[in-house]
Amino acid sequence: MDLANNVSQETERTEEQWLEGLRKTVEMVLPIHHYQESYGAIGIKSAADIKSLKDFQKLPLTTKEDLRKNYPFGLFAEPMENIVRLHASSGTTGKPTVVGYTREDITLWARIVANSLKRAGVTKKDVVQIAYGYGLFTGGMGLHYGCEELGAIVVPISGGNTARQLMLMRDFGTTVLACTPSYALYLAESLEESGISRDELKLRIGVFGAEPWTEGMREEIEQRLGIKAYDIYGLSETMGPGVAMECPAHKGLHIDDHFYPEILDEEGNPLTVGERGELVITSLDKKGFPVLRYRTKDLTTLHYGTCSCGQVGWTMDRVSARVDDMLIIRGVNVFPSQIEEAILLEGFEPHYLLVVYRVGNLDQLEVQVEVNETSFFDEVRELEARQQRLHKRIEDVLGISVRIRLVEPKSIPRSEGKAVRVVDKRNKEVK
Amino acid sequence: MDLANNVSQETERTEEQWLEGLRKTVEMVLPIHHYQESYGAIGIKSAADIKSLKDFQKLPLTTKEDLRKNYPFGLFAEPMENIVRLHASSGTTGKPTVVGYTREDITLWARIVANSLKRAGVTKKDVVQIAYGYGLFTGGMGLHYGCEELGAIVVPISGGNTARQLMLMRDFGTTVLACTPSYALYLAESLEESGISRDELKLRIGVFGAEPWTEGMREEIEQRLGIKAYDIYGLSETMGPGVAMECPAHKGLHIDDHFYPEILDEEGNPLTVGERGELVITSLDKKGFPVLRYRTKDLTTLHYGTCSCGQVGWTMDRVSARVDDMLIIRGVNVFPSQIEEAILLEGFEPHYLLVVYRVGNLDQLEVQVEVNETSFFDEVRELEARQQRLHKRIEDVLGISVRIRLVEPKSIPRSEGKAVRVVDKRNKEVK
Repeated sequence: MDLANNVSQETERTEEQWLEGLRKTVEMVLPIHHYQESYGAIGIKSAADIKSLKDFQKLPLTTKEDLRKNYPFGLFAEPMENIVRLHASSGTTGKPTVVGYTREDITLWARIVANSLKRAGVTKKDVVQIAYGYGLFTGGMGLHYGCEELGAIVVPISGGNTARQLMLMRDFGTTVLACTPSYALYLAESLEESGISRDELKLRIGVFGAEPWTEGMREEIEQRLGIKAYDIYGLSETMGPGVAMECPAHKGLHIDDHFYPEILDEEGNPLTVGERGELVITSLDKKGFPVLRYRTKDLTTLHYGTCSCGQVGWTMDRVSARVDDMLIIRGVNVFPSQIEEAILLEGFEPHYLLVVYRVGNLDQLEVQVEVNETSFFDEVRELEARQQRLHKRIEDVLGISVRIRLVEPKSIPRSEGKAVRVVDKRNKEVK
Repeated sequence: MDLANNVSQETERTEEQWLEGLRKTVEMVLPIHHYQESYGAIGIKSAADIKSLKDFQKLPLTTKEDLRKNYPFGLFAEPMENIVRLHASSGTTGKPTVVGYTREDITLWARIVANSLKRAGVTKKDVVQIAYGYGLFTGGMGLHYGCEELGAIVVPISGGNTARQLMLMRDFGTTVLACTPSYALYLAESLEESGISRDELKLRIGVFGAEPWTEGMREEIEQRLGIKAYDIYGLSETMGPGVAMECPAHKGLHIDDHFYPEILDEEGNPLTVGERGELVITSLDKKGFPVLRYRTKDLTTLHYGTCSCGQVGWTMDRVSARVDDMLIIRGVNVFPSQIEEAILLEGFEPHYLLVVYRVGNLDQLEVQVEVNETSFFDEVRELEARQQRLHKRIEDVLGISVRIRLVEPKSIPRSEGKAVRVVDKRNKEVK
């Protein structure tokens, strides 16, 4: 079922249709040693053995670790002569995770991203400034090919050089900005100091992804840049950006029909629609490097139904946290997004840093929150009151005591890519 | 005449055929205010007024300054709705120069680069690691689309992160490296220190460009990386990489048939085949941003004839210097490439820096040359003798006295992009 040329999927897929796609992917990976072994162990010898979605859910999950063990090309389903592109994760520790694309994969990916962009209202008349990093990271290149497929004007500026970003944004009449939400905020902040007025810009849409963010952050960015901000979701292991995208209804991100989503609890057991857990993705038409039940480490909730935009199918809530982000502090699960929400609700800006350290055997959480120029010169008493309210709000949410420290404007480092929110100073060995 | 699908141009273009292409470009730009004005001033009202190559040579030259004056889109020949990509020069000072491409331009560019790569023996079976910068610079993206057109495996790694470049070069079985020659040399040097043996690599071809380099530098890179190095030429203003490319005969770079070359003396007067001067390029089939008689500031010599590879047409010598690079020291023209040659001939490595300063009213040139680990521990007497020979060789070539300073291994900064060869400390106002 090829819906790629039509943004709105107005027909519902039956279980049999989903299964058809899933079985195709199982068939593609079965010749691969890794899958042969793990599927064989549970008695799956051919795609025909998958008779229901329940059967499918018995298949072992795929993890980043599996990709690393099969580094670099061990999980590719096509011979190397059919591969035309390699991308890789940044791989700060150990081996990077490598993904490969056939020519058809690149074409499909471009169409998927083009559809995502259409969903947010991007048209061929737009000037799209792509400030995601280009290179082995799929963010820049994925958006680039999608815009090109759409026929928009692409400004492949990549990350960094903020003054230049703003100058070209004005001079080129950029209408769409694509980058991480934290870089969007940094651009907004820099714009205010740049001498370029917002009226000189034609910016109307933001396409933001590649890191967890909150609704409050969206409001902040929308207001300061005078745009509509849309969340785009994806990760290199599953293809790159475009796996899911918001529509103007802002009722979650529509998952593209070329991917089958599941949601799991911490032990890896299936959860149902409406329950929050880890997103698991299976690709349906990717050829070079198909992924089966890939653990994304992203925490979200799945929904199924008809959106007011006309789309029928799966949606997912905005990813506001990753499994990796979760801090365990005195036995309590703490997500940066919970704290971010509280910070924004108290009228502070989303420039914060969570510092975890240990005094004796006791974990301590310090929340550093930046005050802005105005609040910095607020009456000290007023600032103290806000700090106290924030303090109470965070402790209410988390159920543990924390320390709030207000810090000077601009003292928390800005990010041109993904923001760093946590500094964990506890000795990793002592758990 | 469309030869793009066939690398070897086995037929000679007649003057009339060249003129046909040139007139087409004149016709495209005549509606543009800038050209209307400057061409009108010399009585050119329509393309038909160009009756001979002599007539063509009367047309005003186009300079980077003209691009800046018409910033950002004033020299585009297509309406913005037909433009799908913008690139820009790094523009360290003042406004960047901006170039625009239609969809057809992107396709043509990809085909031109693919042909250039074929010329150097790159095939669809190759794994091409593109370590040119991606983004607004045309180097990375130009090569990328060319490789894709060819069907090779593209590793879009972009510049920087040398340890990772080497790791992936080995792990991905990279066969072709594309970057600046100075970065290639830096990679070679880093390889020797990395613990990765050259035997673990499958590297066979280098595609190097974007900065002037010498034959000695080529030999050095070829020997240290165990590859065949090919020079690729181009600049954003004329399209990007692919304007010209070496073939295995290494008898100069074949200029692609979609460009018409000329060579000028310092005053802008036409020189003939075999004379060294500034290269001027006219594009023949570029639609979004055609360039007419664009002054490249690159110094070279043009040739015309049949190469042993079967190609008939224009070739140019390797660009070893730019007009901008030329230093005037005590009234004498000095090019870094002249000094580089002498350095390599005396067995030093091409890590050097030219420092120009002034003592009283007298210009001084200090040539800093790095000694390598081995030469550093050479007998002092032997090193002194080599220094003296280098001193004499450089003074013989330049005809002025210079100072040679041997500096420690690795003390001259390595470049991940274009190398910096000159530090001019003279007061710019005092000429």
